Amino acid sequence: MTSVQLVEVGPRDGLQNEQILLSIDDKVELISRSVDAGVRRVEAVSFVNPKRVPQMAGAEEVMAQVPRVDGVSYIGLVLNRRGLDRALTAAVDEVNAVVVATEEFSRRNQGCSVDEGIAAAIDVVHDAREAGLRTTVTIAVSFGCPFSGEVAPEWIGEIIARLTDGAAPDEIALADTIGVGVPAQVRTLADLAAAHAPGIPQRWHFHNTRNTGYANALTALECGAGALDASIGGFGGCPFAPAATGNIASEDLLYALDRSNVTTGVDMYGLIEAAEWLGRSLEKSVPALLGRAGGFPDAR
Amino acid sequence: MTSVQLVEVGPRDGLQNEQILLSIDDKVELISRSVDAGVRRVEAVSFVNPKRVPQMAGAEEVMAQVPRVDGVSYIGLVLNRRGLDRALTAAVDEVNAVVVATEEFSRRNQGCSVDEGIAAAIDVVHDAREAGLRTTVTIAVSFGCPFSGEVAPEWIGEIIARLTDGAAPDEIALADTIGVGVPAQVRTLADLAAAHAPGIPQRWHFHNTRNTGYANALTALECGAGALDASIGGFGGCPFAPAATGNIASEDLLYALDRSNVTTGVDMYGLIEAAEWLGRSLEKSVPALLGRAGGFPDAR
Repeated sequence: MTSVQLVEVGPRDGLQNEQILLSIDDKVELISRSVDAGVRRVEAVSFVNPKRVPQMAGAEEVMAQVPRVDGVSYIGLVLNRRGLDRALTAAVDEVNAVVVATEEFSRRNQGCSVDEGIAAAIDVVHDAREAGLRTTVTIAVSFGCPFSGEVAPEWIGEIIARLTDGAAPDEIALADTIGVGVPAQVRTLADLAAAHAPGIPQRWHFHNTRNTGYANALTALECGAGALDASIGGFGGCPFAPAATGNIASEDLLYALDRSNVTTGVDMYGLIEAAEWLGRSLEKSVPALLGRAGGFPDAR
Repeated sequence: MTSVQLVEVGPRDGLQNEQILLSIDDKVELISRSVDAGVRRVEAVSFVNPKRVPQMAGAEEVMAQVPRVDGVSYIGLVLNRRGLDRALTAAVDEVNAVVVATEEFSRRNQGCSVDEGIAAAIDVVHDAREAGLRTTVTIAVSFGCPFSGEVAPEWIGEIIARLTDGAAPDEIALADTIGVGVPAQVRTLADLAAAHAPGIPQRWHFHNTRNTGYANALTALECGAGALDASIGGFGGCPFAPAATGNIASEDLLYALDRSNVTTGVDMYGLIEAAEWLGRSLEKSVPALLGRAGGFPDAR
């Protein structure tokens, strides 16, 4: 393994739980800074109900202003046909549909059962593909659930199989939504995904809530991950998941990847600057460590 | 791999960089709390010059009061014959001698060249073994140096070979003193250590300065680590290493180990309580995440 895609999810997952609402211009600046640093896939917007997630309001205005750079792909989170229609109007390049793996969390987060969520994701993938968009399905709480605790990996395998049979998305993303996972689980889920969705690239989404996120990401890479989600500065969380603070930080992940000779095409120092800017905008200190610690020391 | 030793280094590395000086009673309480939680090896004291590291003063008084529990082994850091004499008087169970792998850091930290440091460590191991103590040699800045940058793994291999030939310590510890390492380096160094010190157990010491510490620890475990250092609450650092904040936290490491079915005999919740107590004593917030996030959620 010598390269991996870094998917910058700061503009979506990084922001959605923040109390200070960023302006459209600030959201566009965050996205532009990530692109300037070399990121080529950005989860830029979410087409959810802005009454439920106020930070995600104005997705259309954001997409109207983002830099359209050759090779850069913008992802919009989409939960249903109505969201997909908005995504098509806003001209995103990819959609990310979400299936929540447990009943209680699915009802709270998506307002539907798991079965209904799977069916909705299959519909979104079909319709998005017909419209020419690249498609991902993310399986949330794949590593554990705040309401039901343990999540059997075999159940995640079954969801993967049903998604593959029903729609064969271009990518399957496994999400540790509340930051409880460990590398042993990553290996188990990677094997199950390879078995139930052969040939479909794997993307992984980790939170560092319990200091396992970076170990999980590096393990996913060993298991052949095509893409890793991370958020500038390590901001982020889920408004419906208690204590689900902290996506893994893009710059901290990049440090580990750079030092492991894994190429991403992304400049760590550009991300560190973007994180400092974002921290000022959100009036919060930056959770990521690289901005404070600095990169690997040069010889003096 | 189904078990590993957790070496609690909070009383030594965790404290030595803190500005608020703990009383002897508080140091004894920290050690007692870790033993009560099930820790069976504690790096309890350092026999260095208290003028250089004021927090380490009173090592003899600390050792006079620690609970002498069957199966619990107390380690004292020792740099030279004078330190060893103090360690013997204080009746520690083990000594940990330190070789710094780079010249500038060695001169600043130990006041001697690397060659002199290796010779001193060999002498300490010989004399300590003769006195009936278990011996470890830690190789500091094995993953990178704040002054000279990259550290060739082959050079670490040579130091290991010279220590093995000269004294064959009971354990060799590889330390990422400034928190720059990544798992790929762990694998390289583990292979070199196995080649140059066959049969000698490996112990690892990680800082989480750049969010790679837990990934490194779990990788070391995969490579057959016998022992992992960690510090209650994730306090700690090196007074002579700029920005070397943060040992990996014992409770956060334990979360990952517990969830990976690796047994340690240590109770995570006991460590979380100890970390909260220590944070109050040091008037600092606890760097570790488990106390804030809580353990893996129960089904509701």
